[in-house]
Amino acid sequence: METIISSASKTVVIGPERPFCIIGERINPTGRKAFQKQLQAGDISQIDIDVEQQVLGGAHVLDVNVGDPLADEVALMREAVLRVQSLTDLPICIDSSVIAALDAGLSVYQGKALVNSVTGEDERLEAILPIVAKHGAAVVALVNDDEIRMDPADRLVIARKIVSVAGDYGIKPEDIVIDALAMPIGAEPRAAAYFFETLRLLRDELGVNTTCGASNTSFGMPGRHQLNAHFIATASTHGLTSAIMDARSPECVDGARAADVLHARDEYGMAWIKAHRAAQAAAAAV
Amino acid sequence: METIISSASKTVVIGPERPFCIIGERINPTGRKAFQKQLQAGDISQIDIDVEQQVLGGAHVLDVNVGDPLADEVALMREAVLRVQSLTDLPICIDSSVIAALDAGLSVYQGKALVNSVTGEDERLEAILPIVAKHGAAVVALVNDDEIRMDPADRLVIARKIVSVAGDYGIKPEDIVIDALAMPIGAEPRAAAYFFETLRLLRDELGVNTTCGASNTSFGMPGRHQLNAHFIATASTHGLTSAIMDARSPECVDGARAADVLHARDEYGMAWIKAHRAAQAAAAAV
Repeated sequence: METIISSASKTVVIGPERPFCIIGERINPTGRKAFQKQLQAGDISQIDIDVEQQVLGGAHVLDVNVGDPLADEVALMREAVLRVQSLTDLPICIDSSVIAALDAGLSVYQGKALVNSVTGEDERLEAILPIVAKHGAAVVALVNDDEIRMDPADRLVIARKIVSVAGDYGIKPEDIVIDALAMPIGAEPRAAAYFFETLRLLRDELGVNTTCGASNTSFGMPGRHQLNAHFIATASTHGLTSAIMDARSPECVDGARAADVLHARDEYGMAWIKAHRAAQAAAAAV
Repeated sequence: METIISSASKTVVIGPERPFCIIGERINPTGRKAFQKQLQAGDISQIDIDVEQQVLGGAHVLDVNVGDPLADEVALMREAVLRVQSLTDLPICIDSSVIAALDAGLSVYQGKALVNSVTGEDERLEAILPIVAKHGAAVVALVNDDEIRMDPADRLVIARKIVSVAGDYGIKPEDIVIDALAMPIGAEPRAAAYFFETLRLLRDELGVNTTCGASNTSFGMPGRHQLNAHFIATASTHGLTSAIMDARSPECVDGARAADVLHARDEYGMAWIKAHRAAQAAAAAV
């Protein structure tokens, strides 16, 4: 199954036979006090730096989140989407927990966006899916509802429900990217194992594309980049087709690219070789 | 199934529930002209440096190969095994294509060694397995015969044959570590995919432990350490329980350790945290 998203001039296809899709996650004020202050003052210029770094790092899609409880997120999202689209032709993943902000971002977006996210709760499905359908977008769907689910079978049940309800709104399974829930290994040693099993179930039973917030896994651990990188590449072998991740991490981007080489989605490693020669040339030029 | 090897004072267990077993491969003159010259002159002092680096890097077992067509390999192996055992308590993988050298090394070895390697050809099986049995050793068995096999099903057939013939010599399946043949991706884009499939077959059908020469995969490619690291961790998720690899590569050792974290063989990442804190402390001390 292939999920197609686009900007005005560029199409990105997410799918098991396609290069692993890197959704750059940096455009987000979470944990960034300076950026939060700027957003509260209506200043979105930091986005220019973030976009450049994510594009340079190798992102295929850019997640855009401008949520701040002290700011007007609806206005900010509209502005942010326009700004990002003026800077790059990469498709956008419009990311908000505020439904009006999703709608505002989608209203000005040129192309077919990805929406981040809906969950399995009825009220969220009923509120968000009509907007996704109205704009002809694709949507990230987290496999939890009113609680965090760890059991892969429970997660599959929620995924089935979301796919079914989305169908009622005219949204096809290929336009749903299931977030299979990457959780911290430091809290639950089997968190990654559950995640991999969830991926296999989703691939075998539903055939949908999948994503996750890749850095959650290593929360609280040292060597996060290395651990995240191995989490991404290992997840890819169990069916993960995209991740929301920081493209500024060469380790993590290498993980995604290595997975492509190892699974023959990058035949003879042509993309790998090109990326590594470019990195070597850049390092030599310093 | 668990493969137990040992030195006089240390036991290493290879198995699916155990930490991924790093068999340090550096003590080997292949591609090392200076070391080759030294061996030809009967000088094995380079081994001291190699052992120290592999131990420091995180090896659990040391592969020892002193093969050189211009040297007396039988005498060298005897000497090398004694020397390595005087330097470290890590178990040894005695590595030679010369049967008399394997026998000589095993004769002076204290503990239960791993022998590297036998293949599926009758004459090799008939020559090497009696020596393995005589010394009560374990053995690495490559799943090829007179030709390189790429098809996972063909590789399984050879593995079955080796396990069966070994049984005739009184060698149990747990004392056979199948080398599932890591081949260059630059020559065959599906080489890693075949390898992973072979691992799954070996795990599901025979339950034996497995290994490989991990660096073969990236032959001719840039970014070899990164690619090897992802190959190792990804292979682990398909059942690989050990690899013959250079423990001087932090990327590759991290790959093995990350696999332990991701598969809950390193609960709460305690070993990962310890190793990364030690590396940070060492870096800070420079």
